[in-house]
Amino acid sequence: MARQPRARAARGARTRIERDTMGEMTVPATALYGAQTARAVENFPISGLRAHPAFVDATVRIKLAAARTNAGLGLLPRRKARAIEQVAREVLAGRHRDQFVVDVYQAGAGTSHNMNVNEVLANRAAELLGGRRGDRALVDPNDDVNMAQSTNDVVPTAIRLAALELAPEVIAALSALAGTFDAKARAWDGVVKSGRTHLMDATPIRLGQEVSGWAAALGAAAGRVRDALPELSVLGLGGTAVGTGLNADARYRARVVRELERLTGVPLTPAPNPFYAMQSLAPFVALSGALRTAALELLRIGGDVRLLGSGPNTGLGELRLPPVQPGSSIMPGKVNPSMAEMLAMVSYQVVALDGAVAWAASGGQLELNVMMPLVAFDLCHALDILARAVRAFDARCARGLEADRERARHYAERTVSLATALAPRLGYAGAAEIVKASVATGRSIVDLAIEKGGLTPAQARRALDAARLTRPGRG
Amino acid sequence: MARQPRARAARGARTRIERDTMGEMTVPATALYGAQTARAVENFPISGLRAHPAFVDATVRIKLAAARTNAGLGLLPRRKARAIEQVAREVLAGRHRDQFVVDVYQAGAGTSHNMNVNEVLANRAAELLGGRRGDRALVDPNDDVNMAQSTNDVVPTAIRLAALELAPEVIAALSALAGTFDAKARAWDGVVKSGRTHLMDATPIRLGQEVSGWAAALGAAAGRVRDALPELSVLGLGGTAVGTGLNADARYRARVVRELERLTGVPLTPAPNPFYAMQSLAPFVALSGALRTAALELLRIGGDVRLLGSGPNTGLGELRLPPVQPGSSIMPGKVNPSMAEMLAMVSYQVVALDGAVAWAASGGQLELNVMMPLVAFDLCHALDILARAVRAFDARCARGLEADRERARHYAERTVSLATALAPRLGYAGAAEIVKASVATGRSIVDLAIEKGGLTPAQARRALDAARLTRPGRG
Amino acid sequence: MARQPRARAARGARTRIERDTMGEMTVPATALYGAQTARAVENFPISGLRAHPAFVDATVRIKLAAARTNAGLGLLPRRKARAIEQVAREVLAGRHRDQFVVDVYQAGAGTSHNMNVNEVLANRAAELLGGRRGDRALVDPNDDVNMAQSTNDVVPTAIRLAALELAPEVIAALSALAGTFDAKARAWDGVVKSGRTHLMDATPIRLGQEVSGWAAALGAAAGRVRDALPELSVLGLGGTAVGTGLNADARYRARVVRELERLTGVPLTPAPNPFYAMQSLAPFVALSGALRTAALELLRIGGDVRLLGSGPNTGLGELRLPPVQPGSSIMPGKVNPSMAEMLAMVSYQVVALDGAVAWAASGGQLELNVMMPLVAFDLCHALDILARAVRAFDARCARGLEADRERARHYAERTVSLATALAPRLGYAGAAEIVKASVATGRSIVDLAIEKGGLTPAQARRALDAARLTRPGRG
Amino acid sequence: MARQPRARAARGARTRIERDTMGEMTVPATALYGAQTARAVENFPISGLRAHPAFVDATVRIKLAAARTNAGLGLLPRRKARAIEQVAREVLAGRHRDQFVVDVYQAGAGTSHNMNVNEVLANRAAELLGGRRGDRALVDPNDDVNMAQSTNDVVPTAIRLAALELAPEVIAALSALAGTFDAKARAWDGVVKSGRTHLMDATPIRLGQEVSGWAAALGAAAGRVRDALPELSVLGLGGTAVGTGLNADARYRARVVRELERLTGVPLTPAPNPFYAMQSLAPFVALSGALRTAALELLRIGGDVRLLGSGPNTGLGELRLPPVQPGSSIMPGKVNPSMAEMLAMVSYQVVALDGAVAWAASGGQLELNVMMPLVAFDLCHALDILARAVRAFDARCARGLEADRERARHYAERTVSLATALAPRLGYAGAAEIVKASVATGRSIVDLAIEKGGLTPAQARRALDAARLTRPGRG
Repeated sequence: MARQPRARAARGARTRIERDTMGEMTVPATALYGAQTARAVENFPISGLRAHPAFVDATVRIKLAAARTNAGLGLLPRRKARAIEQVAREVLAGRHRDQFVVDVYQAGAGTSHNMNVNEVLANRAAELLGGRRGDRALVDPNDDVNMAQSTNDVVPTAIRLAALELAPEVIAALSALAGTFDAKARAWDGVVKSGRTHLMDATPIRLGQEVSGWAAALGAAAGRVRDALPELSVLGLGGTAVGTGLNADARYRARVVRELERLTGVPLTPAPNPFYAMQSLAPFVALSGALRTAALELLRIGGDVRLLGSGPNTGLGELRLPPVQPGSSIMPGKVNPSMAEMLAMVSYQVVALDGAVAWAASGGQLELNVMMPLVAFDLCHALDILARAVRAFDARCARGLEADRERARHYAERTVSLATALAPRLGYAGAAEIVKASVATGRSIVDLAIEKGGLTPAQARRALDAARLTRPGRG
Repeated sequence: MARQPRARAARGARTRIERDTMGEMTVPATALYGAQTARAVENFPISGLRAHPAFVDATVRIKLAAARTNAGLGLLPRRKARAIEQVAREVLAGRHRDQFVVDVYQAGAGTSHNMNVNEVLANRAAELLGGRRGDRALVDPNDDVNMAQSTNDVVPTAIRLAALELAPEVIAALSALAGTFDAKARAWDGVVKSGRTHLMDATPIRLGQEVSGWAAALGAAAGRVRDALPELSVLGLGGTAVGTGLNADARYRARVVRELERLTGVPLTPAPNPFYAMQSLAPFVALSGALRTAALELLRIGGDVRLLGSGPNTGLGELRLPPVQPGSSIMPGKVNPSMAEMLAMVSYQVVALDGAVAWAASGGQLELNVMMPLVAFDLCHALDILARAVRAFDARCARGLEADRERARHYAERTVSLATALAPRLGYAGAAEIVKASVATGRSIVDLAIEKGGLTPAQARRALDAARLTRPGRG
Repeated sequence: MARQPRARAARGARTRIERDTMGEMTVPATALYGAQTARAVENFPISGLRAHPAFVDATVRIKLAAARTNAGLGLLPRRKARAIEQVAREVLAGRHRDQFVVDVYQAGAGTSHNMNVNEVLANRAAELLGGRRGDRALVDPNDDVNMAQSTNDVVPTAIRLAALELAPEVIAALSALAGTFDAKARAWDGVVKSGRTHLMDATPIRLGQEVSGWAAALGAAAGRVRDALPELSVLGLGGTAVGTGLNADARYRARVVRELERLTGVPLTPAPNPFYAMQSLAPFVALSGALRTAALELLRIGGDVRLLGSGPNTGLGELRLPPVQPGSSIMPGKVNPSMAEMLAMVSYQVVALDGAVAWAASGGQLELNVMMPLVAFDLCHALDILARAVRAFDARCARGLEADRERARHYAERTVSLATALAPRLGYAGAAEIVKASVATGRSIVDLAIEKGGLTPAQARRALDAARLTRPGRG
Repeated sequence: MARQPRARAARGARTRIERDTMGEMTVPATALYGAQTARAVENFPISGLRAHPAFVDATVRIKLAAARTNAGLGLLPRRKARAIEQVAREVLAGRHRDQFVVDVYQAGAGTSHNMNVNEVLANRAAELLGGRRGDRALVDPNDDVNMAQSTNDVVPTAIRLAALELAPEVIAALSALAGTFDAKARAWDGVVKSGRTHLMDATPIRLGQEVSGWAAALGAAAGRVRDALPELSVLGLGGTAVGTGLNADARYRARVVRELERLTGVPLTPAPNPFYAMQSLAPFVALSGALRTAALELLRIGGDVRLLGSGPNTGLGELRLPPVQPGSSIMPGKVNPSMAEMLAMVSYQVVALDGAVAWAASGGQLELNVMMPLVAFDLCHALDILARAVRAFDARCARGLEADRERARHYAERTVSLATALAPRLGYAGAAEIVKASVATGRSIVDLAIEKGGLTPAQARRALDAARLTRPGRG
């Protein structure tokens, strides 16, 4: 979100005049966009950040689907529709991407974004039809490109499509990381270590068991993201301005959704209640909430990796982290858990952006929620950085983790909670006496179990064998 | 959360001595709890708030199920088990509720809460067996009542059970409110009004359409809460201290879950991965997230009710709110949307408590998350107040809402966005001219459509008929 | 926030009829409150939680100050004023506290709370004047007790006064904890240990230095709370319904604030802009934000205490925590950082409640923010639990912390970052080679400095002396 | 935060080899950065977003100040110091800005950022000294550029300097907007309108009064930001790795801060407690909290602007908003409160980013908080967008607001709460009867005051004169 060169309707060398219902605007001669875009650029010199590519793609696909549908209904001349489709194909193939110049912090509902797309498509289509940019007689951004559409039904649909495009990568990244930990869990099934609850000595556990919990957590996190997608495939497109479908042909809704389904390859359905689909951003909150839950799990698990990998000489050191870069500008040879730290920062950000999505969702009024541009941007950004951070952490940290079996065993044999295994025999109180004596004297639980607990050495060794204590059973 | 008289191990008139592994504590002679509870009361004089009843119930049910299971496995003498079961039944029937005296802000993981329940059950069971309170030889809170259990598997299980008990009421309340709005939507299907997007004149819509969107939103919100429940029925009980099941019989896990299923009447399963079930609080975040999404929708819809009900003379006044109490201490006769305001405050609180649940969930370390007492309390509180607020809003506001048809029609006929219907004929730019003229001169869109748009009066009236414009179609 | 027995306008044995502008209500004969309170009890059966005592006190003080002022202005008969004052004194002395029965989630702006106080004062005053409860002719809750007031200026003033009452205890608790750590820092000035940045071996530091940072942090946190108070002493009282002062004598504002100043002993001033003082809850957000910042520091410092105190055998163990209660229901002899965990839970809650305060503050509309009851409750609760949690943590954990000097020194001598001290001599790259060799071979940095770095044994020992490295200076 | 072309250590046409302690890396021949930067680019392909320019500037200024100081102390050869200073001047003048290529989501503490700056300065300095890039013998990024520094003291200092640079613009923007509303308040002092509390008819108020509250709120918001700055001018620079100052000359700290003061023109002081200055990010939370409070006020005030500007025909319409762009792609002639909507979205984002800053601050451990890169980015972004959004809203909305006096008066004369003025005469209950009759019959309060209240027509007109009721006083 850094300060970047602003898009600007430069008044330089070569410009042309564009018009909208408020009058004339000068735009660069090379610009494909028109007057409303130019106004938005002037009005919103906020961040220099522009629409996420997936959001542009989604909007353009809607325009393409609408043009085809309207042409099929005999409302848009085939010639115009074909030209619009051709421009849309160009944009989807990566052309004209520098023409989407409106700041992400812009007019409510995303009118500026929608008009930016309408104008680029109209002007370029006019060119393709042999005319010049700005000739609304050939292709009009409102009457033709935006036919049967409103920002109010286009933008919530575009956010849905963008999320449906980006979310699978998050799911895949989380699942892959779950797979990595699953493999580690199997590899480390024999690594006996001390449990630590409240960060204090607890009963033994195998590293593989602990890490299998991480794998399960990430699998569940991926599942929650997946479960949030079906309601995003329900589209309010066709509701136009307030959900009623005014200025759209009665057959338009069903057809345009079918077109979009074809274009995206994702199953889509028209909203049974288009008013809900336009009023409410709750489906985005639900998806964002699933990202949040994943991020909180990543914070937790990444924290555990950092804790278990602490050291080399002054920490727990049960895990060895693959070095990825020098850890310090002043302390030579320092290796840090840099990938886990990056993952934590991304997780904090995902949770924070989720807050923006949630509160923006509460800001709807009557038929519309005008905070959609913020939701579009934050949701796409969160999806992006979460997927990439998990991938990078997986590739450059998780897969390279190694267990320090010796150190793990060292702790396993010394945790005072070995004495828990004596409780069925000595009672909780009796076992507690042994622990207290061990802490006070430094003597081992085994020795004290023999001396104070009345066990034979063989019994004590067996009863307090750390590996055995990682399985269910009483004494 | 107000300051309240503290539970206190009073040193007054009649007391007795209780013991734990740290030594002696004086408790009131009448107290059923023991030394560890008394320590917790001393350690945590924070809020005066105590465990939610549903959380107590759930913990007690776990004790009951464990006693039965351990007795069935031949590990706990039948006599003790029966006594424990009898006390549990007493508590579940409403007795001894004043004995759960630990502050909600307490020892990590809820050890104090778990021991409070263990002590109350042990002491009362000892009494039932003819002994006296504090006689651990008869029934021991750790060795008997807590047999095969740890705070670490009991508390996350108890939160799950409490949530499974409370959540259905939230679902029912949201569904009922959805039903109320659904009925209103049908009743108001003929009430034509002006749409207002960005709070500005938009195209007409029927009040029934708008309100059908609320019904759909609340139905979806209820559904999200429902979808968050299945993962709560997966229990880590039997994992004991760190998930390995140490000190529990190998057959215990499956059996104790079956017992709980019987006791609760809810389908429950042992966690395939008990380590995940103990490490992670993500399932609570997911449920809390669903409550949050519901609360955000309620903020939005309640805000719309307040806006449409504004007036009587200086607001929009399309809805009339049932008066429930005088609205002002100074302005006589004032009627306020008090129920909607209460709903908003509860919604803000639910979202805030969700933040606590979420961040507490990120605070897990290794085999355990010690922040569980906070999660237990905040989640139960959120479930409670959300259900009750929705019920109260439904009963005392939503059901009594009335439409002001005349005023709705008044606005419907005056919105300048009627001109949208002229765009297919006159083009967007042409229609915009008519709107501008109307705003400048105060003349009606119909008149200007005739004068400037070339429509006959009949055409104009038909083209601009507000009711007609609430249905799909072009011109 | 647990489910509690509801206040209820019981229809039992003995009741009486009360009236308000909406009609009659039955209240218990023993109730001092009247019809509007009874309506609120019926309307808001939400949480069972009632107004914080400090908020009741503040409201009552306002009534008292207003009665005196209005009597002084000749508007309220002296006799009535004296009776109102007498009741106010009774309440402030602790009587009638069970009469404030409205749920904290209630009518917007707190009209129900304000009327509850008005009714209790009016009814009891009528009694004192020889009449019976409910006789409005003797003392009227609106016309007399609420004279020259509106909920809209009373409630924001009452929250200010409550916060000014409660905040000093937070400041004192934080300052005391800072003092504790300050004393520890001096006591531990000679305890040399390893630094750990990114949880990895860093250069040596003295425990006293580290802990002096905690003391400074808490001192700063206390200071931020203190700095948030002055703007709370600026009162909008006298603005009545919308800030204009309608129905208050022109001299009332200045006088009533002076009365309040006398009653509270806190310097108070009338708001230069009463409209701002009623529209905006920002001063509460600012105070709440200061509490939040303190809570985040406590989370961090408490986390450090837990980390340094981890063990006894499987953690870092540089600090020894005073045992306050048995740590586990299953693991005998376990000692947990229970006080620090409680502190963490309270901190999470304070941050969460801050979120409610903040968002509620954004919900103001025009002359008023109706979300005030939520702000009142959450802010008072946060102030309360934060002060008490810090006090308890201080008394039962911080003051009893002990350093394990031996273990600290053990780590100080083994951190690989001792090699940092070689960088000025060998260069960063040269020192890094020594660290790598040490990690690979397990040999000490001192040995390798001699062997590879060309230092004499004496030079090496001196250059790498851990205590010496805790002071500024190059090699 | 959109997807952007990644910085990449391209292996294309012309490259060179750079080295660090982990080995060799290939970088583009044109790159000024070295091996560690190249590693970071590979490790963190997360967002495509790079360091905020103010953060780069601040870091470079620190390098410059350190070079001068170290040279002055005789530790860094003058020749090297002069070369480093020259590069620093180049960067501050805008050159080499494309060389800061590390993603904002990066290694903990910002080691990658610090090394990126170290490498660019070292390599370019080597060039200036006649050598080639990567020749560490001429100028070494660690030993020379980073001399007496650590990421751990450089980065928290750099965030402080960046914030001190950016915050004044926020203060200025808020103050300017306060000034705009102040001017409007004076201009509209005679515009009488109806108050609306709870969105319901309240007593009259003048638009100027209401808007004066906005001015006061924004002035206070600016003041809170200002008050958060002094603690940012206290610098931990010189603490090096863990706050002890190892590898820095004992005189370095005081001198380098004095140098920075000269370079920035801002008063700066060395931290009395450098450990606190490195452990804690609380001063950033405090600043961020002040931004949050401002954002919440802007949400509220912007919401009021949208509400009062609603219409033109179906809303309140007391304000007329300057049109800045066509409001709808489908509804011709629609004018939306686009600037206020943008302001709301920015405000939501500022609050969300504040959440990231706050939680990241809680994540400190021991001597350091590694989440600093996130804090740096989010804080700078928030400062940026808030300042610009407020400026744009001021210029394109606030200054152009116009009051609709006629409509305001229309409502002022019809609010049923005019009857409040009758309460001192008729009692609250008597006045309530008049309001009820008015609502039931539609008759005016004036008429009913005459008929039922016993006022003469002259008395009634005078008692109920809306303008008069906007001033303090009883009847």
